[in-house]
Amino acid sequence: MQNRVKKKVVKEWFMLLQNIICNDIEKIEGKKKIFVSKKWSRGKNKKEGGGEFRIFENGKVFDKVGVNFSEVYGNLSKKFKSSVPGTSKSSKFWASGISVVMHMKNPHIPAIHFNTRFIYTSHGWFGGGMDVTPCLKDEKLKKWLHQELKKSCDRHNKNYYKKFKKWCDLYFYLPHRKEPRGIGGIFFDYKKDNWKKDFAFVRDIGITFKKIFNNIIEKKKQKKWTKKEKNIQYLKRGRYVEFNLLYDRGTKFGLQTGGNTEAILMSLPPLAKWK
Amino acid sequence: MQNRVKKKVVKEWFMLLQNIICNDIEKIEGKKKIFVSKKWSRGKNKKEGGGEFRIFENGKVFDKVGVNFSEVYGNLSKKFKSSVPGTSKSSKFWASGISVVMHMKNPHIPAIHFNTRFIYTSHGWFGGGMDVTPCLKDEKLKKWLHQELKKSCDRHNKNYYKKFKKWCDLYFYLPHRKEPRGIGGIFFDYKKDNWKKDFAFVRDIGITFKKIFNNIIEKKKQKKWTKKEKNIQYLKRGRYVEFNLLYDRGTKFGLQTGGNTEAILMSLPPLAKWK
Repeated sequence: MQNRVKKKVVKEWFMLLQNIICNDIEKIEGKKKIFVSKKWSRGKNKKEGGGEFRIFENGKVFDKVGVNFSEVYGNLSKKFKSSVPGTSKSSKFWASGISVVMHMKNPHIPAIHFNTRFIYTSHGWFGGGMDVTPCLKDEKLKKWLHQELKKSCDRHNKNYYKKFKKWCDLYFYLPHRKEPRGIGGIFFDYKKDNWKKDFAFVRDIGITFKKIFNNIIEKKKQKKWTKKEKNIQYLKRGRYVEFNLLYDRGTKFGLQTGGNTEAILMSLPPLAKWK
Repeated sequence: MQNRVKKKVVKEWFMLLQNIICNDIEKIEGKKKIFVSKKWSRGKNKKEGGGEFRIFENGKVFDKVGVNFSEVYGNLSKKFKSSVPGTSKSSKFWASGISVVMHMKNPHIPAIHFNTRFIYTSHGWFGGGMDVTPCLKDEKLKKWLHQELKKSCDRHNKNYYKKFKKWCDLYFYLPHRKEPRGIGGIFFDYKKDNWKKDFAFVRDIGITFKKIFNNIIEKKKQKKWTKKEKNIQYLKRGRYVEFNLLYDRGTKFGLQTGGNTEAILMSLPPLAKWK
């Protein structure tokens, strides 16, 4: 398949998935057209791609949810390109992705993060994953989540789950707190074994994410919470902010490549506390 | 003067200033022994220095204020030392400093930050400054603040104010937002012209900070505020968090040299919002 075509179909999948996810969220909230959508362009004469982020705040179930699609291209800065593979001969890049962060009203429902992306420099690779951040202990949820992820991974390769779970644990870790961000999930990057199979896996992770967030919310949305539990959620969100601003590579990539700040920092919770 | 003696007198000044500032804060709150104090040690066998941070939260005037003293020494990591002067032959360092961040209850009173430090590798230098972050426009405050800072700087060198004000504007800037953090102040680093004179300047900046925060609080503390103004303050604090975690060199230095996380992130507000 031509690279041009690969980029096109991947991008179209990400755009479709954005619609699917937003549609599900509207169903959960029981209301249509709730998203504020913003399209943005970047680069020289605004001709180096852009994206559309959709954000919904202060709902019945969601405190804040952002569903972000982007397709960006151009040249990486000298300083930044040393950390991106395939840029020794040319600083040209193309990248498209979808990322979702859900911050929930009910502290019994964890924050959920999902992202998949395809990046092309002199060669192309996929990356992404999803991870779950409860603020209250929930061993049952953890077990169920990892079973679901394992099932999805096993459909593609029996080694994926173990490898990508470990990668997730290593990545979503706050060294200064000696704390994991949440209860993990899966994370992968630089995936370029077989384009067709990799793309099928990436699509499946999107569908798995859809299943997981709907399922978790449905199971927990009726559960009552106390003021004290809500406060624990605000403090846990402080950790979320710390991770995203101190360590997250997606945030760095976005800010370094002149992405849309609002879209990049969409991941931050509406309210966070530190004590 | 011997380096050993220099370190000792600087450190003793920072410790004294910590007491002076905490004393003033207790006077403002009209209550004694309000601070929670925590001593910490770092490094191999906890024998590479440490510090004492004092924190007070949820007062009548202060939402959160941290007054942090530290004296740390040991060896810089290979990766980190390249960004610290005087480390080409040895990775040994010694650093002592005091830093203060005040987040106020009343949104008419700006957040105020102050820091002075002395660092020694193969040679020693001073750094520091203070800056002010209102969330509501206040041209009168800005004018007064800069007059005060200019007066203090001028006592030492007629070139300082202009130079250090500019440095502050460059440093406390959020490129991803294209926004300054606040209304500026003064900032300086690598100051090693004349140890005695530099130290006198550093002491004077401490005393000027004492005057400025007392004066600002006294002028504004009776002013009534609305819920809307409080909300603007919470959003402005979101920017404060972004700056400190994405860009602040003090935060990076602290986390990279294995400092105490609680003490380093003391600068974060008790509550921040993003929209």
